[in-house]
Amino acid sequence: MEEPFLVQTTDYKPLNEGSLAEYLSAIPSVAELLGGSPDDWRVREVGDGNLNLVFVIEGSSGGVIVKQALPYMRLVGESWPLPLERSYFESLALAEQARAAPGSVPRLFATDRVGAAVVMEYLQPHVILRKALLQGRHLPLFAEHMARFLAESLFKTSDLYLTADRKKSLMQKFCANTELCKITEDLVFTDPYRISPGNRWTSPQLDDDAAAFRADAPLKAEVQALKLKFLTSAEALVHGDLHTGSIMVTDEDTRAIDPEFAFFGPMGFDIGALIANLLIAAIAHRVHRQGALGDAYRTWILDQAELVWTGFATKFQSLWETEATGDAFTAELFEDPAGRIALGRMQDRYLADLFADTLGFAGCKMIRRVLGLAHVEDLESIADPDLRAAAERKVLALGRRLILKRSTMTSFNDVLYAVEEIDL
Amino acid sequence: MEEPFLVQTTDYKPLNEGSLAEYLSAIPSVAELLGGSPDDWRVREVGDGNLNLVFVIEGSSGGVIVKQALPYMRLVGESWPLPLERSYFESLALAEQARAAPGSVPRLFATDRVGAAVVMEYLQPHVILRKALLQGRHLPLFAEHMARFLAESLFKTSDLYLTADRKKSLMQKFCANTELCKITEDLVFTDPYRISPGNRWTSPQLDDDAAAFRADAPLKAEVQALKLKFLTSAEALVHGDLHTGSIMVTDEDTRAIDPEFAFFGPMGFDIGALIANLLIAAIAHRVHRQGALGDAYRTWILDQAELVWTGFATKFQSLWETEATGDAFTAELFEDPAGRIALGRMQDRYLADLFADTLGFAGCKMIRRVLGLAHVEDLESIADPDLRAAAERKVLALGRRLILKRSTMTSFNDVLYAVEEIDL
Repeated sequence: MEEPFLVQTTDYKPLNEGSLAEYLSAIPSVAELLGGSPDDWRVREVGDGNLNLVFVIEGSSGGVIVKQALPYMRLVGESWPLPLERSYFESLALAEQARAAPGSVPRLFATDRVGAAVVMEYLQPHVILRKALLQGRHLPLFAEHMARFLAESLFKTSDLYLTADRKKSLMQKFCANTELCKITEDLVFTDPYRISPGNRWTSPQLDDDAAAFRADAPLKAEVQALKLKFLTSAEALVHGDLHTGSIMVTDEDTRAIDPEFAFFGPMGFDIGALIANLLIAAIAHRVHRQGALGDAYRTWILDQAELVWTGFATKFQSLWETEATGDAFTAELFEDPAGRIALGRMQDRYLADLFADTLGFAGCKMIRRVLGLAHVEDLESIADPDLRAAAERKVLALGRRLILKRSTMTSFNDVLYAVEEIDL
Repeated sequence: MEEPFLVQTTDYKPLNEGSLAEYLSAIPSVAELLGGSPDDWRVREVGDGNLNLVFVIEGSSGGVIVKQALPYMRLVGESWPLPLERSYFESLALAEQARAAPGSVPRLFATDRVGAAVVMEYLQPHVILRKALLQGRHLPLFAEHMARFLAESLFKTSDLYLTADRKKSLMQKFCANTELCKITEDLVFTDPYRISPGNRWTSPQLDDDAAAFRADAPLKAEVQALKLKFLTSAEALVHGDLHTGSIMVTDEDTRAIDPEFAFFGPMGFDIGALIANLLIAAIAHRVHRQGALGDAYRTWILDQAELVWTGFATKFQSLWETEATGDAFTAELFEDPAGRIALGRMQDRYLADLFADTLGFAGCKMIRRVLGLAHVEDLESIADPDLRAAAERKVLALGRRLILKRSTMTSFNDVLYAVEEIDL
């Protein structure tokens, strides 16, 4: 893998349409990729996210993306400061993910730590997966691609693949990404279950539901057990925010973007994030599109959720068979026939535990999209508040079920039964 | 807590009897503590350990210990290099343990990172717990003290007490202590279960037992599951080597020493290490001292092992009730009556899981003391090889049982039943 160019900016200054051409012309590989004269490069700001400036720069022979962190949360304003260092963590994560799962993330051309900017591949004609799902697009390969991305990026940054010293030196870097982790700790695991100024929900329809969740002590205890796992289980380098808005797709290609929340955490957090957002999309879709076509596409989405899990599990197990170079489960100990059986049984247990984690984290991610600060277009775009609340109530019920029953749901069929019971 | 003096050595050089007075006279607090003229300070090397130089320096009004790392394992020689930085990790750990569990570790006077030395309290008339147990001494307070040390040092470096950013910044420092962790990974979790040049056991008596353990696939799989937990579960700052040789006692006082293996790992590793070594001492004792007195002291040791666990659990739960200031199990969510019940149930589950971890790690620690590189005096001092092998076989059987049955052993009585069945 080529190493990214290191831009030596001396102090932080937000980039803009006027300054970008000069900025990029100093990066030889990027200047060459764009082609022609910097004066002719076209720049537009396209950031629709919550946290960053995002520019597309196109020259005569190609384009790149420049993503720059702002020192506050764009969605909320300067009252919510955010660390610029998250840009550096994004570039570190992109580099590791590219190493672990080649072709699954945008190519990284340059990193500017002080300037808090990353220059990367302009993905075209990719669209955000969430948008594609809202449009009812059938994407023949995305589930397979994401299963592979999850298996490779998680396995190859875990103790099953890395030696302990290599893993810990990587983990050491990401230990400093605490402020973005804190956002997750609060917004996913805590605020939806208490009165918090950032919370919102479809009101008054869901007022009683929100109050019931705040009073649901057994659920809160389970959510906090999952939060403890988020805080302590350094299993692998997780993306940390892998919802359907962090994935770009075409029919042939799939990329995970925006890993600025990356840290060493529980694998189930990433798998659960994706499955949660697919389940939300499935529930929302029949509201958006009634009748047989809506039903069929909902079934297709549910099939993709299942394929993500089963594809992940198959690929992960196969990596464990063929590339177990790490310090965990020292391969040498299991080379005889009895060892292979015992290891196989342990792999099954590992995947069963990971499935339970996945469902638990998926449940947390579903609930926070209805009761917390950040909502999703799948549900927000249901204009009628009664219809929206009805769908959101199903999302809450399914999320709650996944959290409480995660240890007794042993195959994806159990998830599908729960969906059918709740989303009749 | 007073901060240790930072010695500004410019390069590493082993200290010796001749150089120590000058070295210490440059540390004002130490010079004052020793009293009188440096020319009159008495120096002796007392290191009997495997890894370091240890000096006692006494002046007219007091004494200190200087512990300096050597760049290789003293037990094996220069062929086994070891990082000097472990001395720095020891001083970091001593400082954190003193903060978390005041009075439970030696006072730290000075840290010399480049010189790889630590100047600390000379504990007198303390003796090593392992020696006291071999002498059959009744120590009225040590179990209570160690229960408190374990509860405080583990709770107060965990996410139950620390905010996530504070915990991760501490964890970041200890991520670099990989080489000593690697020793544990190899010597405790791996080498006893494979052919390894460092292994030794009472031969030929235990040759078949060693072969059986190397072929015991289900056991190896469980040991590797525990190793995975050692590698990934960053629950708290653990001492990392808390056997009975790392504890100094008098009738009134108890201190944990030598935390150079410290890192963020699973709490059960520390509790299990201590309980393992007490169980070994109990089994060995009846060989050393036959008859009623031997039986009585064996019972006393087993009582202490139980008191360590039950005292720990009580103190840990009480800290959770009163000092839950961390980001895990956000206290605010559980303030109503239903919340208190749900949290209580979760605390019980937490302690049940921790008990299972404790027994699993205890089992690993027991087996490695019989089949691995580093043995313990409790067993080594049994001169008759047949008698020694018989005791060691019991240690192996008990360790194996604890590992395989750890999830179904729900109270310390289950451990005591296993001891009585195996050590008839």
